[in-house]
Amino acid sequence: MKRLYNRPDAVVDEAVEGLALVHPDLLRLSPDPMYVTRADAPVRGRVALVSGGGSGHEPMHVGFVGPGMLSAACPGAVFTSPTADQVEAAARAVDGGAGVLLIVKNYSGDVMNFEMAAELLAADGIATETVLVADDVAVEDSTYTSGRRGVGATVLVEKICGAAAERGADLAAVAELGRKVAARSRSLGLALSAGTVPATGRPGFVLADDEIEFGVGIHGEPGRERRPMEPADALTDRALAAVLDDFAADELTGDVLLFVNGLGSATPMECAIVARRAVRTLGERGLRVARSLVGQYMTSLDMLGVSLTVLRLDDDLARLWDDPVETVALRWGR
Amino acid sequence: MKRLYNRPDAVVDEAVEGLALVHPDLLRLSPDPMYVTRADAPVRGRVALVSGGGSGHEPMHVGFVGPGMLSAACPGAVFTSPTADQVEAAARAVDGGAGVLLIVKNYSGDVMNFEMAAELLAADGIATETVLVADDVAVEDSTYTSGRRGVGATVLVEKICGAAAERGADLAAVAELGRKVAARSRSLGLALSAGTVPATGRPGFVLADDEIEFGVGIHGEPGRERRPMEPADALTDRALAAVLDDFAADELTGDVLLFVNGLGSATPMECAIVARRAVRTLGERGLRVARSLVGQYMTSLDMLGVSLTVLRLDDDLARLWDDPVETVALRWGR
Repeated sequence: MKRLYNRPDAVVDEAVEGLALVHPDLLRLSPDPMYVTRADAPVRGRVALVSGGGSGHEPMHVGFVGPGMLSAACPGAVFTSPTADQVEAAARAVDGGAGVLLIVKNYSGDVMNFEMAAELLAADGIATETVLVADDVAVEDSTYTSGRRGVGATVLVEKICGAAAERGADLAAVAELGRKVAARSRSLGLALSAGTVPATGRPGFVLADDEIEFGVGIHGEPGRERRPMEPADALTDRALAAVLDDFAADELTGDVLLFVNGLGSATPMECAIVARRAVRTLGERGLRVARSLVGQYMTSLDMLGVSLTVLRLDDDLARLWDDPVETVALRWGR
Repeated sequence: MKRLYNRPDAVVDEAVEGLALVHPDLLRLSPDPMYVTRADAPVRGRVALVSGGGSGHEPMHVGFVGPGMLSAACPGAVFTSPTADQVEAAARAVDGGAGVLLIVKNYSGDVMNFEMAAELLAADGIATETVLVADDVAVEDSTYTSGRRGVGATVLVEKICGAAAERGADLAAVAELGRKVAARSRSLGLALSAGTVPATGRPGFVLADDEIEFGVGIHGEPGRERRPMEPADALTDRALAAVLDDFAADELTGDVLLFVNGLGSATPMECAIVARRAVRTLGERGLRVARSLVGQYMTSLDMLGVSLTVLRLDDDLARLWDDPVETVALRWGR
């Protein structure tokens, strides 16, 4: 393995430290237990949003900390859940008196540790609500998950709930909104090759030259099937078909947000080629791509692949999506 | 080669089409000759900025089209200069009566075709000025270049000149500013592995498992030397030393902008690990990193590597850097 690392066991610490170092206006790092908050936290009277998960998915989650999105993120080791201690400490640090929303991807370790943190916080009188994200239609149970895995929809939940919190919505309303976004989202990913695991220096799995993993998880978990490689348009249509088939027939109308997510090594050209086909295919299915996000936002180290997420919009969700956000990975103004 | 393409010869067309399709509010595509303008072009009374170059360096340049940065970008085929026709047509489309600044990376084909376009425009009474970017300290002449190659500083020239144009500066002033940014910038890149060329399906060059190309060009041109692989901190210091040695001794003081640029497959963690070391090493040399940009902005397909650019700031440059920008790849508000 040749990578831009110093020591495999220092990758996460050094990367988070580097990110905090170049964004002192935006981020504040607490090293032990490790979490990153927005520099102006706690914000009095506003619901705080805390997420986290294993590292190796950057820019998620630390790249989404800032005004209009997360209040804090807790990075675990690579592909390893953060501890309950991290989550508890982060939530305490950002609680502004209006309670804390915990945004959790559906992996057993994450669910357990966020639950434990919520209990510790409750014992101290800090109110929490949890939004569980489980949008991956590929498989029902998986290596680290009972039920569906949480993938791309997490980014959308964090953005939209962050906007509502910034506008002053209360904890129950922000949580309800997060559950709504999660419920209206479906995703599927596919890999042409695996990411390189820092601890071993090896790819997480091996595919033949003419093979893809269809429905891959963001830790390299097996998907629905290994299939022959196809051109980008055919792969895009195949992934979209799986996503759309999971909605009820009467839901397949109106405006959607299309999220084309590179899983690590997909180039901007590859992401755009997939987006081109996806916009057209959705159009042919009667869905208008009213909002989109195209790029690397939730990766699996340097995996070569892409995931597609479709969120059924309504006016409220579109408005909150458009609200200003100022984070490392997502930034826009009014 | 497994990549998310349809046909190798359609990669650029489909990618640019996809990008324009998902950003209809921001971009307008003219297919033949191919160029992309900001959707509101021409902007009356404002200097227009036109750049372009071979594709394979995304998000450069199309990702930098929008308010506060480029008025138009002309994508050539992969690693191939755009034609004079493309540049001429783009400049005509965005000229708002205040003239057109051409921002050119120093490669022989680009220089020739932008010069030819400038002559055609002059014949029709459209005023142009050219800023030539040649910031790569690695080598004096190279495969496609007489003199130094133009690399990372191009992003900085485009951002800062775009802000000045948006504020209403005239053509001579915007051009002078661009030359100032170029003159105060130095860069160096290094590769751990090459990008995969779409037309051949093969890497542009091959390195041994323990080898890097130090001073690599963005088309895989040879650098200063092939060297043994080292940890990220050592590579960062080695690249920074080459960059800083190229400034005069009395210039090594004050505020700088640090640009850590992933060349394609470097993960956000790898870019952040390099940035962490660079901020510290610059600090030890008496330079304060007052602004930074860390991520993939000027790539070489899926090359694994990174380039470092240092721009000596002054108050004027810092203020223009902070001005709002709204493009696919760089966005921030007031």
